Amino acid sequence: MSAAAAAGPGLERFSINQMTVKQLGLPELVEACGEQGVTAVGLWREPIQEYGVKAAHDLFAEAGITVTSLCRGGFFTAPDRQAVLDDNRAAIDEAAGVGTDTLVLVSGGLPEGGGLVDARARIAEALAELAPYAADRGVRLAIEPLHPMYAADRCAVSTLGQALDLAEPFDAGTVGVVVDTYHLWWDERVDRQIADAGAAGRIHCFQLADWVTPLPAGVLTGRGQIGDGCIDMAHFRRTVDAAGYDGPIEVEIFNEAMWARDGREVLRETVDRYRAVAAD
Amino acid sequence: MSAAAAAGPGLERFSINQMTVKQLGLPELVEACGEQGVTAVGLWREPIQEYGVKAAHDLFAEAGITVTSLCRGGFFTAPDRQAVLDDNRAAIDEAAGVGTDTLVLVSGGLPEGGGLVDARARIAEALAELAPYAADRGVRLAIEPLHPMYAADRCAVSTLGQALDLAEPFDAGTVGVVVDTYHLWWDERVDRQIADAGAAGRIHCFQLADWVTPLPAGVLTGRGQIGDGCIDMAHFRRTVDAAGYDGPIEVEIFNEAMWARDGREVLRETVDRYRAVAAD
Repeated sequence: MSAAAAAGPGLERFSINQMTVKQLGLPELVEACGEQGVTAVGLWREPIQEYGVKAAHDLFAEAGITVTSLCRGGFFTAPDRQAVLDDNRAAIDEAAGVGTDTLVLVSGGLPEGGGLVDARARIAEALAELAPYAADRGVRLAIEPLHPMYAADRCAVSTLGQALDLAEPFDAGTVGVVVDTYHLWWDERVDRQIADAGAAGRIHCFQLADWVTPLPAGVLTGRGQIGDGCIDMAHFRRTVDAAGYDGPIEVEIFNEAMWARDGREVLRETVDRYRAVAAD
Repeated sequence: MSAAAAAGPGLERFSINQMTVKQLGLPELVEACGEQGVTAVGLWREPIQEYGVKAAHDLFAEAGITVTSLCRGGFFTAPDRQAVLDDNRAAIDEAAGVGTDTLVLVSGGLPEGGGLVDARARIAEALAELAPYAADRGVRLAIEPLHPMYAADRCAVSTLGQALDLAEPFDAGTVGVVVDTYHLWWDERVDRQIADAGAAGRIHCFQLADWVTPLPAGVLTGRGQIGDGCIDMAHFRRTVDAAGYDGPIEVEIFNEAMWARDGREVLRETVDRYRAVAAD
């Protein structure tokens, strides 16, 4: 493993989530990061599996790039409980294998025939099963609240408060939360809940994406580039910092128009937008 | 004005919002209601303006059909404050003119350069301007919280609690709230807030639509027929009833596939689905 690469000015905490520039393959991503002073990335399971977990680990380690998170475990409310647990143990192994301490969890929507309360009970049970396995491997489980528009089919955890309630029974070094501006900006309680999460040492991941309208069909790929939407990013950053968080700040944007562009140019634009938020 | 038409069995509180069957013109809607024992409708401004407010009033009054609400005033955060107030006074006049005591308000999204707190301040100011005008005409202003996915561009009031906070300075007979299952089902606080709204005498309108996925582009026309989605409608109805509400229950669904079908058949299906909820 080489020494850490040198971060560009103001990029000490910046991490690019690979989905933001998914048009770049892993070696291209590493090259582009090197060119632009980016020293940290967030990764996704599928491209890592395809490339090989060990090969991906070595690629980033040799370039001195830190892996700040792996997306994603979760979907705890699916019918086959054993398959769910097996897949999440595999995700924990992959996180450890690729060299990150943080696995992001998208918890799953409503179970067959059940409501939100049932869903959250299933999520709590799965966390209890998985937490010791994760702790043994030095991986933190980071529960990501998703916007309420995903509550039925993707994630019954819609607020940072609910995520914190689910994390509470566990050691803060093992189970925490993700603060993602896209999912939480609408909630009047979020500043207070960020303070609570920070005080509890449970902010394991901080992600930026902006809210733009109209939403596309399926509402998955309509996130906006930082500064293109309505979210006060600098306020979020200051609130998270004031809560005691000093970890990486990942930009994770799913946007068809951005994916259609040159990936290096998108990374450059993202770096510029991030710098403005970090300096504000 | 004729006597009230006779409601079909179990339909005493049922009201069909005209948008659910917008393929039916007003005279067809009246005929279909007569055939199916439906004695109440919720109306929208544009079709009423087109038909003529007085003519619409007379059409429904002569058929013995009650108008349970008019949609919609609001959009208080638009740049031209005077135009906003003028348009809302016109909406209040139209509500009185068509013979309903309830004007539904969709409050508007983020103002130019402002955030959610600014938006809600603008909404509060507009309500203060409009409440005396509405009270003088016997029209109740019903603030509708919309799902958080509309917070930026349509309605900065995302929860029943926020709507109640905005209503609180005013007489309950003048300013209240709309409880719409589609917008509120995801919120763990909603049962308690419905109880609060009922205790305050502020439930002015109760609307049903189901949550189905995937959401369509623009997320406006993807509401589901009652029973097709994940919302526990009977639980909502019982909660609203337990809060002391005994007024009309409107079904208001925006759904392209339902609009493409025969309107009378959609009304019949809606009546059947409603009966199941009312009996549960």
